[in-house]
Amino acid sequence: MKIFQTHDKIKINNLLLIGAGLIGGSLTLALKQAHVSRHIIGVGRTPSVMDEALKLGIVDAAVSVDSPEFIDAVKTADVIVLAMPVGQTCTVCTQIAPHLQPDTIITDVGSTKASVYRDAHAALGDKVRQFVLAHPIAGREVNGPQAALADLYVNKKVMICPHETNHTDDVTTIAAMWQATGAQVYELSLTAHDEIFAAVSHLPHVLAYALMNHVADSDLSNDKFAMAGAGFRDFTRIAAASPEMWRDVCLNNKEAILRELDLYLAHTQQLRDDIAAERDADILAQFTKASEMRLAWGREQ
Amino acid sequence: MKIFQTHDKIKINNLLLIGAGLIGGSLTLALKQAHVSRHIIGVGRTPSVMDEALKLGIVDAAVSVDSPEFIDAVKTADVIVLAMPVGQTCTVCTQIAPHLQPDTIITDVGSTKASVYRDAHAALGDKVRQFVLAHPIAGREVNGPQAALADLYVNKKVMICPHETNHTDDVTTIAAMWQATGAQVYELSLTAHDEIFAAVSHLPHVLAYALMNHVADSDLSNDKFAMAGAGFRDFTRIAAASPEMWRDVCLNNKEAILRELDLYLAHTQQLRDDIAAERDADILAQFTKASEMRLAWGREQ
Repeated sequence: MKIFQTHDKIKINNLLLIGAGLIGGSLTLALKQAHVSRHIIGVGRTPSVMDEALKLGIVDAAVSVDSPEFIDAVKTADVIVLAMPVGQTCTVCTQIAPHLQPDTIITDVGSTKASVYRDAHAALGDKVRQFVLAHPIAGREVNGPQAALADLYVNKKVMICPHETNHTDDVTTIAAMWQATGAQVYELSLTAHDEIFAAVSHLPHVLAYALMNHVADSDLSNDKFAMAGAGFRDFTRIAAASPEMWRDVCLNNKEAILRELDLYLAHTQQLRDDIAAERDADILAQFTKASEMRLAWGREQ
Repeated sequence: MKIFQTHDKIKINNLLLIGAGLIGGSLTLALKQAHVSRHIIGVGRTPSVMDEALKLGIVDAAVSVDSPEFIDAVKTADVIVLAMPVGQTCTVCTQIAPHLQPDTIITDVGSTKASVYRDAHAALGDKVRQFVLAHPIAGREVNGPQAALADLYVNKKVMICPHETNHTDDVTTIAAMWQATGAQVYELSLTAHDEIFAAVSHLPHVLAYALMNHVADSDLSNDKFAMAGAGFRDFTRIAAASPEMWRDVCLNNKEAILRELDLYLAHTQQLRDDIAAERDADILAQFTKASEMRLAWGREQ
């Protein structure tokens, strides 16, 4: 893992944003505020969402997929940002491919990287060299363009996962774009990315969704929700995240997530058996280890 | 579940605090700030902790267990607050019992209620009628007297679980004491309390401890901790909580926690199998249900 040096400010004349939700919207708001982008065109599936994005200044214009304006926007884009759920990568890249110019850089914001590379490669062929994979580590418990914030990425981490056919200049441009939002940019391999985020992001999301549904399906569920406190609130905050995005993450980083889930479930089952057998020293040792690590981790953040 | 009416301000002349950590310390700081308590004597296992509590104004004097001063403090106390881990309830009540006067109220702050009643009854016999069980729903990711805050309980919930031999006046006094800290006080049965908090508090703590240890024991653990973001931070915040306190909670609410853990693990295993089989509609339905509930719950807080 390598941290990118801070680059000089870049200028992006024409940016095409595909998907104008929390993550993409926060990016363009930040780029506008930093005077990095000149003109931003947005594309999205839902007209009302795009109207909202236009009203909020996330995009300067909105076009429909496959319209002549969309083709023009692809042709004239300096940077195309894919900010829709990762499951749509192949479809979107297939729409872009025939009109993609050799100097345009494509990038994304997806939580899985090997699958985005695979799908982009399938749709773009050799032009995948123009695709710089990226992933900002930031989110909120609300979704959509109205959730976007110009300062969402300030002091947040962004992973860039260059692959072997990427041009260094393109990678540098995307790193500089993210640095302009206030983020710290790291370089990481696709495989390490997917393994790391399966553990510290994808797994906790699955566990938080499962806890909400477990409580909802259990006895006294209304009283449980009514009495839940700050611990429950923080633990389940990520369960409010976009269901479609996270369904796609689970399907597109399946192997790594299953590996983490199986190890986690075995770990928790062992702790369950320790509690059942009242192995108090083992329980205390486990809790102490976790608590000390969490306190140390908190101090480093 | 019944919410207590707000009572007139009470006055506690002599309060004896057993265990001067985050929870007990925040209580006495709040009572002092509200001019509810006159004189607070503290007892604890660790002299350095008691020195700290004295320095921070959590207690006005510190005495050693089984000293003549401790016996005097028990004899003259209007209210005795047990604020040590719940596993010490029987020991502490046994120390108090011979000196307990008929007008003194004992109360506690423990996260489990049936076990505290059982242990208090074993040690106090019929005098358990003087013991009003309580549990404030508040915490922080740091422990000890230096973590105590006078406003920790403002707008937080406090559960009071009266049992059949309690006098109504004593229950009312403890409700008024908590109301003076700014908390909202609810009445709940022991059994419902333990079932509800097994689900929304004890289970998430076990899951958060397990996640920290799972990540620590896995490949790339240093990179994983280094790259973890706000989702991981919030999910694992409660893993920093006191290991001893939570070991005691697990052992003292074992049946309810095992019931919740087993149902949760089955639920998560099902979701794991849905991901493995790429049952995308099922995954989306589960995530959507959880997300909508979490958003609705968040709005009600």
